[in-house]
Amino acid sequence: MTTQQLHEQILQKKSFLCVGLDVDLTKIPEHLLATKDPIFEFNKAIIDATHDLTVAYKPNTAFYEAYGLKGWLSLQKTINYINEKFPDIFTIADAKRGDIGNTSSMYAKAFFEDLNFDSVTVAPYMGKDSVEPFLAFENKHTIMLALTSNEGAFDFQTLNTNGTELYKQVLETSKSWKNSHNLMYVVGATKAEYFAEIRKIVPDSFLLVPGIGAQGGSLSEVCKYGMNDQVGLLVNSARAIIYASKGTDFAEKAREEALLVQKEMEGILSL
Amino acid sequence: MTTQQLHEQILQKKSFLCVGLDVDLTKIPEHLLATKDPIFEFNKAIIDATHDLTVAYKPNTAFYEAYGLKGWLSLQKTINYINEKFPDIFTIADAKRGDIGNTSSMYAKAFFEDLNFDSVTVAPYMGKDSVEPFLAFENKHTIMLALTSNEGAFDFQTLNTNGTELYKQVLETSKSWKNSHNLMYVVGATKAEYFAEIRKIVPDSFLLVPGIGAQGGSLSEVCKYGMNDQVGLLVNSARAIIYASKGTDFAEKAREEALLVQKEMEGILSL
Repeated sequence: MTTQQLHEQILQKKSFLCVGLDVDLTKIPEHLLATKDPIFEFNKAIIDATHDLTVAYKPNTAFYEAYGLKGWLSLQKTINYINEKFPDIFTIADAKRGDIGNTSSMYAKAFFEDLNFDSVTVAPYMGKDSVEPFLAFENKHTIMLALTSNEGAFDFQTLNTNGTELYKQVLETSKSWKNSHNLMYVVGATKAEYFAEIRKIVPDSFLLVPGIGAQGGSLSEVCKYGMNDQVGLLVNSARAIIYASKGTDFAEKAREEALLVQKEMEGILSL
Repeated sequence: MTTQQLHEQILQKKSFLCVGLDVDLTKIPEHLLATKDPIFEFNKAIIDATHDLTVAYKPNTAFYEAYGLKGWLSLQKTINYINEKFPDIFTIADAKRGDIGNTSSMYAKAFFEDLNFDSVTVAPYMGKDSVEPFLAFENKHTIMLALTSNEGAFDFQTLNTNGTELYKQVLETSKSWKNSHNLMYVVGATKAEYFAEIRKIVPDSFLLVPGIGAQGGSLSEVCKYGMNDQVGLLVNSARAIIYASKGTDFAEKAREEALLVQKEMEGILSL
């Protein structure tokens, strides 16, 4: 998918919501546990209930790997379901990978070819040759961690490096990498005021924004500082939507929560 | 496994070699491709041929994920085979994971519980709460990237942060984390002179050292600067050993290569 197609989808749905599919078997409705593949059944119901309100789905691979082979199968079935039934929706493998060149190529193959995700998240610590193998895939997108939404973000990401914070150096340096037009960035919503600074460095890139909802960020603040003329934001919400209810009405309640966010986004987009 | 047990194994085998099981189907002997699970058959033969010369095996998860479900199954069979047949050998899931707290807990569960590895590699960028969930597992080890062996290491890891290089700040900061005694660190062999500086910060920790062999690092140089009185080094070699031959003699040739390294290590340990 191109960023142009993603932008068109945003305008059409009046939404830039990404739903995080971080499925924990201890948190999903009990009646699903009797099914053959509870994780997939849960995802399928959530997707069917929210696909017209969201422009992206983001399974976090940790939640699938934790269940071993069965989990990996659930992930495969989930991405196949989205790609077959809702091919216009942008898909993100939230994997935070990154390794030396030949190894990153294997990860890129895993997520872009074998699983056929539109994008994957990567970590920047190992630098250029750990990220460029992902960038080599045209019409696939590599979403690099810049400033994350957790407390530990302040351990290293905001350290002063040569007069600027490390995360700004990461953003700046990455612009010189081959095929950097395929980069997007993770920027946590808990630090809305940082978006103005970030937009000076990467005015045109899409930003994937976790931290709305359970982690406490404000949507309007993020949009105020982070939106560009292509919208340029994908705002993720996971727990607040997918665990809105633990009853048999979980999908319906998830839709209600997603609709609240979508309506707020529609309001912001119409300004 | 405790680090004490690892140290005893090193003394007994006169080796601190770690064999990297980075299995690429395009590089393994053709006759294996006709078997039901070529990756596992390859690993099994390599393990059977080298287990008395090596103290650790390190499958890189990328190489398994690239083959989807079948690859994950090969990884599971490989770790189970090592754990059952050679339970004294230290196992490393080279996964370079790291995410917000509840997600890192899921990764820790995947590698420490579901797959039962002794250790997993993690990336530091997201800071304390992305690593501590791994450290919570007693007698499991979390091997954090400090200074890697690739070219991109110089993009961010060696940036000057508050008067010192970022990787030194990473080492220093991590010592204050909860259960930091369960930390080991990745330090690339291509920069042997850096080991002296690193040992000032983490004198007692085990260091996992990639970059010997295909990446060009010198074993004697690394040992000169990096060894401590518990040895404190696990030196990884992957391609130079596992791809020593593409013929039916691949396991035998892998043993010959491993033996060369082990003999060099034996010489160093006897000094």
